[in-house]
Amino acid sequence: MEEKVINYANGKKSSFNKVKSAKKQVNISSANRGMDFEKDINSSNQHYLDNNVALIYKRTTPIKVIKVDYTRGAVIKNAVYEKQSTTDYNGVYKGKYIDFEAKSTQSKTSFSFANITAHQIIHLEAVIKHGGIAFFLIYFSSYSEVFLIEASLIIKLAKTGYKSIKYDKVKEIGCAVSQKYNPRIDYLEVVEKNYF
Amino acid sequence: MEEKVINYANGKKSSFNKVKSAKKQVNISSANRGMDFEKDINSSNQHYLDNNVALIYKRTTPIKVIKVDYTRGAVIKNAVYEKQSTTDYNGVYKGKYIDFEAKSTQSKTSFSFANITAHQIIHLEAVIKHGGIAFFLIYFSSYSEVFLIEASLIIKLAKTGYKSIKYDKVKEIGCAVSQKYNPRIDYLEVVEKNYF
Repeated sequence: MEEKVINYANGKKSSFNKVKSAKKQVNISSANRGMDFEKDINSSNQHYLDNNVALIYKRTTPIKVIKVDYTRGAVIKNAVYEKQSTTDYNGVYKGKYIDFEAKSTQSKTSFSFANITAHQIIHLEAVIKHGGIAFFLIYFSSYSEVFLIEASLIIKLAKTGYKSIKYDKVKEIGCAVSQKYNPRIDYLEVVEKNYF
Repeated sequence: MEEKVINYANGKKSSFNKVKSAKKQVNISSANRGMDFEKDINSSNQHYLDNNVALIYKRTTPIKVIKVDYTRGAVIKNAVYEKQSTTDYNGVYKGKYIDFEAKSTQSKTSFSFANITAHQIIHLEAVIKHGGIAFFLIYFSSYSEVFLIEASLIIKLAKTGYKSIKYDKVKEIGCAVSQKYNPRIDYLEVVEKNYF
């Protein structure tokens, strides 16, 4: 378990980079790789919506409001980005509730659990308990590969003390997600195959 | 259709009042009545979660970020509250996707559609199309009564030109929701009866 894990980007580790890159087009490779993955998922969701496949939303990054100026309506003058306490995405596919977290890594050997919060584990456990479909989408940027792994499998590993999951294990227990022109990341193809 | 509709509060028409009342405990009866309804739904959802009944979340009020100060991390220095483009609540109950909007009114005669946005209609139509359970919870504060009405029925009325739904019609096509000690507003009892 003592392996060297390099986990640069996760697409939303830093709301800071997210907003900054959106605003100034800063070209930080690691942040952008995460951003691209997120962008590709968002465009896939738009494709699913436009083609009547599913309705999947990206949750907004939570913001903690500290100070509000009421003199001109309600203008927020001081606030900070907060960590997502649930997951990135949820929605409905064929009546079923779907909930997932998207992460990307530059590592060639493993995906670290360091960026999965305790809140997210609790949230995903609740989703599973109530019959929802819960998973992780993990992007290995070094290989340009995306895998869907059932949340229950990641949770089980994390709870038994694992700090990461090896790339080979991901290939073994996860399902490769097809990357296409549109939808870019066709994760519902895997969902359809595995859950329906 | 030319009836006088008084529609004071809707519990989130004004994020302004929401934040203000939370902060300063301003005692505006109409705003507070909306707040109480929201609070009761939130506590009901907490009860559902604690008792392994369902996982239902309140969506956060969207915030449009205008200016961010990066000199000390990422501090938002200028932002405004936005109208919810989807609905207030979504989640999972027995594997099924649930999505609803909660509204309250002081009117004794009708519930106005004025506070339902076009975006919300589009969103709820998509939920229905994908097999999700979509409804409105409407609180008539004058009678202390809560009704669950299928979103499809409200959408149909709104699309055929109705500006409101009469109280008597609500009683006819909606389902009364039991108010208890805990959960305060047991809307899942109605969902269970009608959708399962």
